[in-house]
Amino acid sequence: MDLTHYMQEVGQNARRASHLLARTATQQKNQALQAIADELENQRATLIAANQQDLTAGKANGLDAAMLDRLTLNDKVLNSMIEGIRQVIALADPIGEISDLKYRPSGIQVGKMRVPLGVVGIIYESRPNVTIDAAALCLKSGNACILRGGSESIHSNQAIAQCIQRGLNNAGLPETAVQVIQTTDRAAVGQLIQMAEYVDVIIPRGGKSLIERISREARIPVIKHLDGICHVYIDDKADMQKAIDIAYNAKTHRYGVCNAMETLLVAEAIAPHILPKLATLYQEKGVELRGCEKTLTILPQIVAATEEDWKTEYLAAILAIRIVPDVDAAIRHICDYSSQHTDSIVTEDWTRAMRFLREVDSSSVMVNASTRFADGFEYGLGAEIGISTDKFHARGPVGLEGLTSQKFIVLGNGQVRV
Amino acid sequence: MDLTHYMQEVGQNARRASHLLARTATQQKNQALQAIADELENQRATLIAANQQDLTAGKANGLDAAMLDRLTLNDKVLNSMIEGIRQVIALADPIGEISDLKYRPSGIQVGKMRVPLGVVGIIYESRPNVTIDAAALCLKSGNACILRGGSESIHSNQAIAQCIQRGLNNAGLPETAVQVIQTTDRAAVGQLIQMAEYVDVIIPRGGKSLIERISREARIPVIKHLDGICHVYIDDKADMQKAIDIAYNAKTHRYGVCNAMETLLVAEAIAPHILPKLATLYQEKGVELRGCEKTLTILPQIVAATEEDWKTEYLAAILAIRIVPDVDAAIRHICDYSSQHTDSIVTEDWTRAMRFLREVDSSSVMVNASTRFADGFEYGLGAEIGISTDKFHARGPVGLEGLTSQKFIVLGNGQVRV
Repeated sequence: MDLTHYMQEVGQNARRASHLLARTATQQKNQALQAIADELENQRATLIAANQQDLTAGKANGLDAAMLDRLTLNDKVLNSMIEGIRQVIALADPIGEISDLKYRPSGIQVGKMRVPLGVVGIIYESRPNVTIDAAALCLKSGNACILRGGSESIHSNQAIAQCIQRGLNNAGLPETAVQVIQTTDRAAVGQLIQMAEYVDVIIPRGGKSLIERISREARIPVIKHLDGICHVYIDDKADMQKAIDIAYNAKTHRYGVCNAMETLLVAEAIAPHILPKLATLYQEKGVELRGCEKTLTILPQIVAATEEDWKTEYLAAILAIRIVPDVDAAIRHICDYSSQHTDSIVTEDWTRAMRFLREVDSSSVMVNASTRFADGFEYGLGAEIGISTDKFHARGPVGLEGLTSQKFIVLGNGQVRV
Repeated sequence: MDLTHYMQEVGQNARRASHLLARTATQQKNQALQAIADELENQRATLIAANQQDLTAGKANGLDAAMLDRLTLNDKVLNSMIEGIRQVIALADPIGEISDLKYRPSGIQVGKMRVPLGVVGIIYESRPNVTIDAAALCLKSGNACILRGGSESIHSNQAIAQCIQRGLNNAGLPETAVQVIQTTDRAAVGQLIQMAEYVDVIIPRGGKSLIERISREARIPVIKHLDGICHVYIDDKADMQKAIDIAYNAKTHRYGVCNAMETLLVAEAIAPHILPKLATLYQEKGVELRGCEKTLTILPQIVAATEEDWKTEYLAAILAIRIVPDVDAAIRHICDYSSQHTDSIVTEDWTRAMRFLREVDSSSVMVNASTRFADGFEYGLGAEIGISTDKFHARGPVGLEGLTSQKFIVLGNGQVRV
């Protein structure tokens, strides 16, 4: 197979399908989604058998237990994929929504209409369920998509792709609305991220090195986040119990996720009261604590944090703790070290809460809530295709709306410029 | 001067200033804008003298009359610059606006807060008034900016920069909030568009070759449009008088602007009735007409259009005319040839109007209005810093809001994830 020729064809097909999808009615998009869900239901045995091939190859190639776990398709994972599609069906269709329609002095009405981005390219690793999540969100938002999964899940993804194709077909939509790249050749990714005439946005999901490489080499806008170095700042006007609950939850609810707290900032005045209690809880849970010099005077049993700790996304049962004089110092620390993902203040002080909200430049800024809430489902977006820490276009959890754009519409009655 | 060192310093200064500007109150931003307007008023003689140096050099370097005209700063241009600042002062401050705040089942409130993009880099040619327009819009939207004007207007821009610096200073804001690049070295542009850590967005304004080069080489998002190949489609259900008014206005109101019509599409059924009348009007105005084969059977006196004509932004008193069977063919032609800037349908038919609005994928889509309305002032944005034909982030005329982003905010009362 000539890779360049194949990728160009995929791109052209996607662009053509995108024109049709942009004008497809909500009902037909939902029918296609339902048909895809039905196919997954009917093809459980085929899907699990295809996945077995990937798992066998994965074991032979020495994938670790965590990787194999993410790669596994079983009835439970299939149920959640089907349930995910049902949730996307239930979401309101954002396309065609007209807003802000106002009369201007010239007599024209000016407003905005929400439209699809066009073609979305998604590059991801191991988890085959992303194939369905991504296809469902793109389809509902009227975008064609090109999906490129990891080589370790190629059989699973091809089997899922066949379900998608049949579902689209059953609903009278072109199979090219969702294309799963059929080759494991890594050069396909390099081509996908350069095809600016056929692809409108790239969404990479996976490890940091993958995302860094794609951001560097892409000639197309990328929706991404690299790190989740999230902070909780406990102010000296914090409610003690709320502070303990939030700091404990933000670190220990799940370790390997991007919205877990990695650094705890504590106001100097409250530190001697709250840190011993928190330390006991963390240590019972098996969390390793690393503290700044001042923290060590209160918690002498823990190890010293280095400059490197403030810059590290542990994704593990490790927490860095720093004592700061006040909210100003907390905001400065966050400005210097945050990855602009999610940062939270715990305080009962109105002015400090409002300052934190305005001045912390992260994709999600919180008051008195756990950073773990930074999530498309928790925010009511229905689903998310990723989280963006960029400021351009979508920021924070990206749901259907992040896959759309707004064009201006002008409704007139024969008006001309004078 | 070491250019790299200078540009890095400019970038770092801008990034630092952007943090302060992001939290600056509306009143202080307006005070700075007023102080800049006052400086322009007080320094008229100095500004005109500096501009004289540029004009003298421009004449010596053989700039043509149109270029010299765009370069000229006189009392009339200064008045409009000062008036432009007053209009920006009068605009509502978009920063800090909270929207869509909703309670979620978990008890948290989730909403969005509008925030500045950070640092805006603007690269433009000859017109020194862009220096003031751009600075005013960036300042009001809480963004620091780095401005790089054309070498032919370097003295004018430096004089304007001094007014801006004094104005910022008088209002207690850092002079680094608005930096005008002090060198005419073209390599400065190359560096500016690569400084991803210091610059959040690049806005190029000028000729197509400048914009193409910047888009190709930038490592930072670019807000731009390359072409304005705008269409008017006269449907056979059009009101004849509205169609004539709009088609005449869209072509002849001004020739050298991006929202002028370049191709007129006419439904076959109405063409024999309307084209002779329009042709008379155009020819009285001195517009050269180029028609498709069918058009030539109705207007045998005009020249034949070639494939190249459908792809050309004339920016001149030339119009391409094509007869199409129906609205479907019109939409197809626009899909194939439009630069996705502005396209308009003239029709009294509801269904065709709605289809055109939804299916034409341009930054402005109009019904029964002249394409000349595609403009920030006409749309009520107050001012525009440019027009974007991209789908990512801002689309269409870009005003204050296009220079902002929205972050998520979460207001809680101690909530944790369960």
